[in-house]
Amino acid sequence: MSKPGFSKIAVIGIGLIGASIALAVKHRGIQSKLAVYDSDDDALHTAKKRGIGDDICADIASCIENADLVILAVPVGSMKNVMAEITGHLKHGAIITDTGSTKRSVVRDISPHVPKGCYLIGGHPLAGTEFSGPEAGFPSLFEGRYWVIIPGDAPDDKVSALNDFLTSLGAMTEQMDVDYHDRVLALTSHLPHLIAYTIVGTAVDLEQDLKNDVIRFSASGFRDFTRIAASDPVMWRDVFLNNDEAILEMLQRFNEDLSYLQRAIRWKEGDKLFDLFSRTRDIRRSIIDVGQDR
Amino acid sequence: MSKPGFSKIAVIGIGLIGASIALAVKHRGIQSKLAVYDSDDDALHTAKKRGIGDDICADIASCIENADLVILAVPVGSMKNVMAEITGHLKHGAIITDTGSTKRSVVRDISPHVPKGCYLIGGHPLAGTEFSGPEAGFPSLFEGRYWVIIPGDAPDDKVSALNDFLTSLGAMTEQMDVDYHDRVLALTSHLPHLIAYTIVGTAVDLEQDLKNDVIRFSASGFRDFTRIAASDPVMWRDVFLNNDEAILEMLQRFNEDLSYLQRAIRWKEGDKLFDLFSRTRDIRRSIIDVGQDR
Repeated sequence: MSKPGFSKIAVIGIGLIGASIALAVKHRGIQSKLAVYDSDDDALHTAKKRGIGDDICADIASCIENADLVILAVPVGSMKNVMAEITGHLKHGAIITDTGSTKRSVVRDISPHVPKGCYLIGGHPLAGTEFSGPEAGFPSLFEGRYWVIIPGDAPDDKVSALNDFLTSLGAMTEQMDVDYHDRVLALTSHLPHLIAYTIVGTAVDLEQDLKNDVIRFSASGFRDFTRIAASDPVMWRDVFLNNDEAILEMLQRFNEDLSYLQRAIRWKEGDKLFDLFSRTRDIRRSIIDVGQDR
Repeated sequence: MSKPGFSKIAVIGIGLIGASIALAVKHRGIQSKLAVYDSDDDALHTAKKRGIGDDICADIASCIENADLVILAVPVGSMKNVMAEITGHLKHGAIITDTGSTKRSVVRDISPHVPKGCYLIGGHPLAGTEFSGPEAGFPSLFEGRYWVIIPGDAPDDKVSALNDFLTSLGAMTEQMDVDYHDRVLALTSHLPHLIAYTIVGTAVDLEQDLKNDVIRFSASGFRDFTRIAASDPVMWRDVFLNNDEAILEMLQRFNEDLSYLQRAIRWKEGDKLFDLFSRTRDIRRSIIDVGQDR
């Protein structure tokens, strides 16, 4: 049982992340009242059915009314509009945070709409699955996962209140600068998704027989890519459009490295291949060492 | 309990695959006598410790002596030399098969050394993990997995005998032509591995701080790539050198498709991204439908 840091929390957007936050709050006995809102009626319906949130609100204003913490769990391309909608209804002293995968764009889009006396603290839970929507949410999603916080110029007590709440969901928090966040995530998450989408797309375009057999014999490699490439299309479209600079920079490096290996294959330079393949093994060991291998 | 299709089986190479074959034979009560050999003393030692094989042979000739089925479970770059070593010791009527991930090169390298009265039937179990060596072997590795057979011009009764044995290990067999096999695997397995090696390699070359954080925050995407990029370096070097044509062809397609997405990101063409990301989701559903999603 955690002490109630916030009397009321509002979650805007009941997708995988929003639903999991609501379920974690209930599951972990956090005493805050939790209101949820989604512009999609089906999502609201599922929320009702699954008991996601104490109040399932039909309009966004009543959802955020009197909330001490407002969590925007919508695709990053929608942050600006949602923020513009709620700005007039925020409680004085409220913290606004988000769960978007790109942080520079979110801070840029939201900041102008944050009223005086309210505080924006960006956030990004490094957790998810290839499933989306409120059906996919589950209470343990954040357990043992990092949740990046972008404090910006919010006062320490506000940052610390948010930090305590996220920790009570089971997450490990980590403060970061927007640009650094966007570069790290470009490599650890955005580029891998882009590549997975690409290679699965390459398969989509194959002649039918070959495509059928690619599906049947998808074990070892391709299968993992298809799981990644099954992620929510709207969320990922928005990620690529909103972290374009860092992604294009990492993609440039990736392309150079791929050309190097391509050339080594063409010229049968086995030593170059062996050398790289041995070094990449060490990275896997490091990830196991820091406990991020599940 | 299966009836003994072969009185003696010889497995050359006690890595993940060779060890798993031997363990599956024992575990499933297959009555064939099983001899194993490896040129590496540590592998032989581990085989002895783990009870891998009935006879753990110190020399290759005694391993294959009187064997009705010889399974070459060595990296594809070693097939030619191993075959040259054993050719004078094969039993008349013996079947030679292999477990290599490239089939054109193996058939090319082995065929000239197959004595009259012996039969080459290429094979490739679509099963594996990122771990290698005899410690990594386990008896259920092939259960529910495809095992591709390349019959070539071997007589039907020989193909059928091999087929029965592989089925008794729990595998589902599938006959294929060498070139077709190499194209399908280039996309489902070889290219994904190449890309995983590349992106993890890109991370290896980052400045230290960024690299450390890439490791810490490796969830969602990158982590899956590091698992693939931890695979056996010798095995994979040989795969890339021996299926170079098909891999370079698929890589060319992949590069075109990646450039298309790269351009869409640069020009903020969200529709193109959304369209592709929706289509790739369907491939995942197809893989789940054919039961290859684990």
